[in-house]
This record gives sequence, structure tokens and C-alpha cells, in this order.
Amino acid sequence: MKARVHVMLKTGVLDPQGEAVRHALGAMGFDGVQAVRQGKVIELDLAEGATRADVEQMCEKLLANTVIESYSVELA
Amino acid sequence: MKARVHVMLKTGVLDPQGEAVRHALGAMGFDGVQAVRQGKVIELDLAEGATRADVEQMCEKLLANTVIESYSVELA
Repeated sequence: MKARVHVMLKTGVLDPQGEAVRHALGAMGFDGVQAVRQGKVIELDLAEGATRADVEQMCEKLLANTVIESYSVELA
Repeated sequence: MKARVHVMLKTGVLDPQGEAVRHALGAMGFDGVQAVRQGKVIELDLAEGATRADVEQMCEKLLANTVIESYSVELA
């Protein structure tokens, strides 16, 4: 089975990477880009029988820094 | 309007970040993690009237390195 995890900086945490992208898009002539947030996506191929709880444990322990990042898990 | 862009390394391109995550998960006792790919997710707040073609232009010109990365665009 496959799982996809999104890890984003929490709202209110400064995102310099996203800000750099927003600035660069404006400089390249793309108007109307109001805000950009950049995060990570992690695609996992898991053995059959893995559960959402397993993936959430992985997020809590390794994939996300829960002090400043939030995560969401999609199973497919 | 909001757009979400996923940028992943193309299949066949070595992903050392993903490989490091896979190895670390194994070392932490998470069995059955067969493969991991890590990519970027970029969330854009755009002015009304922006189209998918605009976002694809942003990907081609800045957000993705299309030699080694593929991208997908979701509008919301």
C-alpha cells in the first residue's frame, strides 16, 4: 500500500523558502501571487497491513517537527 | 484562489533524501517500509482569474527542474 504525507510549516511560522518563491515569481512577471508556502511531501511504499496509526507514528517520531510543522496523511 | 503544486523527482532519478528517510525508519523499528520518495509541495494563493496554464508556466520556469523533476498542479 502507499501513503502520502504532507508536512507544512504551521500557520504563523515564518516560511523564508515560500517567501523567496513568492518574490521570485513576482520578479519574473507573474502578477497576483499573494502568498506562497512551501512544504515537503513524502511518499511511502508500505507492506500490506500498515495502518494510518503507523504512518502517524512515523510523522510524530521522524518525518515532521511537530513544534513548528503540521502533517497530514493520505492512504491510497 | 489556491493552487497546490507537487514536485517530485522523476522515476529513475536517485532520491538520496528519500533513501535516508527509508533507512532511518527501518533503524527506528518501522518494518515494512519498502520505498520512500521525498518531494516538495508548494501552496500558492493567487488572484482570482489565474488559470491552470499560469501555474504550469510557473512550474516550467521556476518551481520545477523539468530535467529531473515532474510536477502536478491541483486547483482549489
